[in-house]
Amino acid sequence: MVDIATRVYNHKWKIDPIVRSLIDTDFYKLLMCQSVFRNRPDAQVRFSLINRSQDVPLAQLIDEGELREQLDHIRSLSLSRGESTWLRGNTFYGKRQMFRSDFMEWFENLRLPPYELERKGDQYELTFEGKWHEVMLWEIPALAVLMELRSRAVLDQMGRFELQVLYARAMTRVWEKIERLRQIDGLSVADFGTRRRHGFLWQDWCVQAMIEGLGPRFTGTSNCLIAMRREVEAIGTNAHELPMVYSALAADDAALAKAPYEVLSDWHEEHDGNLRIILPDTYGTQGFLDRAPGWLAGWTGIRIDSGDPASGAETAIRWWIERGEDPTQKRVIFSDGLDVTKMEELHAQFAGRVQVSFGWGTLLTNDFRGLVPDDRLAPFSLVCKAVSANGKPTVKLSDNPQKAMGPADEIARYKRVFNVGRQDSFEVVV
Amino acid sequence: MVDIATRVYNHKWKIDPIVRSLIDTDFYKLLMCQSVFRNRPDAQVRFSLINRSQDVPLAQLIDEGELREQLDHIRSLSLSRGESTWLRGNTFYGKRQMFRSDFMEWFENLRLPPYELERKGDQYELTFEGKWHEVMLWEIPALAVLMELRSRAVLDQMGRFELQVLYARAMTRVWEKIERLRQIDGLSVADFGTRRRHGFLWQDWCVQAMIEGLGPRFTGTSNCLIAMRREVEAIGTNAHELPMVYSALAADDAALAKAPYEVLSDWHEEHDGNLRIILPDTYGTQGFLDRAPGWLAGWTGIRIDSGDPASGAETAIRWWIERGEDPTQKRVIFSDGLDVTKMEELHAQFAGRVQVSFGWGTLLTNDFRGLVPDDRLAPFSLVCKAVSANGKPTVKLSDNPQKAMGPADEIARYKRVFNVGRQDSFEVVV
Repeated sequence: MVDIATRVYNHKWKIDPIVRSLIDTDFYKLLMCQSVFRNRPDAQVRFSLINRSQDVPLAQLIDEGELREQLDHIRSLSLSRGESTWLRGNTFYGKRQMFRSDFMEWFENLRLPPYELERKGDQYELTFEGKWHEVMLWEIPALAVLMELRSRAVLDQMGRFELQVLYARAMTRVWEKIERLRQIDGLSVADFGTRRRHGFLWQDWCVQAMIEGLGPRFTGTSNCLIAMRREVEAIGTNAHELPMVYSALAADDAALAKAPYEVLSDWHEEHDGNLRIILPDTYGTQGFLDRAPGWLAGWTGIRIDSGDPASGAETAIRWWIERGEDPTQKRVIFSDGLDVTKMEELHAQFAGRVQVSFGWGTLLTNDFRGLVPDDRLAPFSLVCKAVSANGKPTVKLSDNPQKAMGPADEIARYKRVFNVGRQDSFEVVV
Repeated sequence: MVDIATRVYNHKWKIDPIVRSLIDTDFYKLLMCQSVFRNRPDAQVRFSLINRSQDVPLAQLIDEGELREQLDHIRSLSLSRGESTWLRGNTFYGKRQMFRSDFMEWFENLRLPPYELERKGDQYELTFEGKWHEVMLWEIPALAVLMELRSRAVLDQMGRFELQVLYARAMTRVWEKIERLRQIDGLSVADFGTRRRHGFLWQDWCVQAMIEGLGPRFTGTSNCLIAMRREVEAIGTNAHELPMVYSALAADDAALAKAPYEVLSDWHEEHDGNLRIILPDTYGTQGFLDRAPGWLAGWTGIRIDSGDPASGAETAIRWWIERGEDPTQKRVIFSDGLDVTKMEELHAQFAGRVQVSFGWGTLLTNDFRGLVPDDRLAPFSLVCKAVSANGKPTVKLSDNPQKAMGPADEIARYKRVFNVGRQDSFEVVV
């Protein structure tokens, strides 16, 4: 029996929208947005799309008209009543009313600001400029749209059964990963794969597979819409954009040196418990920890997002011990380029010494490697970053120089201010 | 959006019927049924289920009440108007009105006769006794019901995502087989997998995958319902039951010796072209060909269904040459226990020397080997055979003594009458 209503409903769309909700975004964007809305409401920020994988010619693969349609559709979205009710009434990290009334009133009336799009050779220049707390909400939907339009460009050329078998293979792969993860006692893993997902429906499938396959070892998803629909925890804390923008806004070198701690001081006022997670690598982990104020060692944990993850965790453990803290009471969240083997290794090395968690991203929600000819569905490294604030460029050093960002002279200045020496380089795959 | 009508429709069924149409059966059963209806309308025949895989305890796995429900449902079926129109109006093997009016009128009024079911230890005794042309139509639906109830017994214990991944793996396997078959120039392969399929929907999927993946190299399916729905050729000619029952009905040894040729003489009158396919192995291929009447060498081809397939084809080629026929104009249809590697080998050995075709059965529509613990979805060797006619036991010798059937004294008599000596034995997997 054909479901006529569904078919008619589907045909009402001129396009097949990729992002259909303002909360189809990462939870930490909303936490950060609220923080920015309160603490830096006047900052003017520019976000830019950056394709680190220049061998993926996005502008050849994706039609500019289709891209504009998708982005315009996102600008037509506003928070639905049910979404608002969920954000206002749900418990996040054990806390009710995580989002304050003034923030929610603003969010309920928000439409995303305009974008600028231009084709440059085989790539697109896509930028968003305006109030920080508005443009920052473009990051995740912009990435989701570009990732999924690229998937569609490849999928469009496939037959119906080829498609079914493609997904059969990808499902089998995810399930085999879950079956391996299931063997890890005391595992704690969340989905961090929104930004570089193969597609929305695929991420939703992966989350449901994790729910069934891992039970309580699956701690939740960073995606708010999926967390709401699948009734799992929304997961996430904060990201590099906070110290990057705070730093760019700093008036001089002395203010710059303090800026990353100012971020955490603002956060400390707003949040407690499992939301107090240090992200130490923006300008080099070792120096950041060495110069940290005393109260920061009392935070609940740390997120390791670049460099060699085991070294990063060992650095954190040494730091906690130096500061008189008990590492076994601290949480270490690994979130950089994870796949099952790496999680097995890190868990074996650190379980019992600290509380280990994983934020599993691209290789959960976009592992289509090797499934089509020329690997045209392989994940690639696309980011959307704050590149300037009040007209001044942002800088990121990271623990991996391959992930550094910013003009050369500013990078040199930041290295001097934050006393960053030689760094080991790691290939950025995803 | 939930399709309420479909959900309500599905809930109207007390059971989820496995066989929903009288033409969810093999095409050759209908051809043979018409032949029996014309030539042996008074023969009383008894069909019995035989599980050659005694390690599969069907009566432990399948609830007797559910089995009765499914069989009772089949007894409630009659030919639908659309099915009747298709059988009357469609072209089969290039011929219109393959089914005569008197046969169609009888078929349109047919309900399948009663069954007898009894549990014996871990197996079921399931028998059908009555007019040959009526009880013979039980064979395929009875097998389909038992195969699918066994699948369901295993699937019932699996979670939703386990199920999805199970089918993902099975689909991937079928597609990888199709991708290998696609490499064979001049391939000609049909689906013969109804009788031992994993389930109806699965067979239907496999056929659609073959249509998309193999194009014209896929010549059709033995399943009439799927052929009708998917608009592909219905494929099949005749089976061992014809010589087995004709032989059992023979009054003495002299009549017995002639019986297998009488079958083909009746067939010769009714059919021509690609329907004139010899099935030579019921009482030993070599002797059958040696004693065959002259006109039989003029038939279009031969089906190799037991013994070593390459030897069988070589025997046929030698026989055609002896009889002054050109083997390159003859069709050899391999249909016993095929999988891709065997098809590749046979095609390499015989393409160009004869016209090669494959009837691919169990390992197309039921290759779930190794996909669940303890291999509880592996295909197994279930048959439903004519065991007696007018009270006299039937006998099959085959080219593989593992497939022989009948009482020991009758087997000895048949071996003497048909002059069958030592035979090589081959394990019967499916």
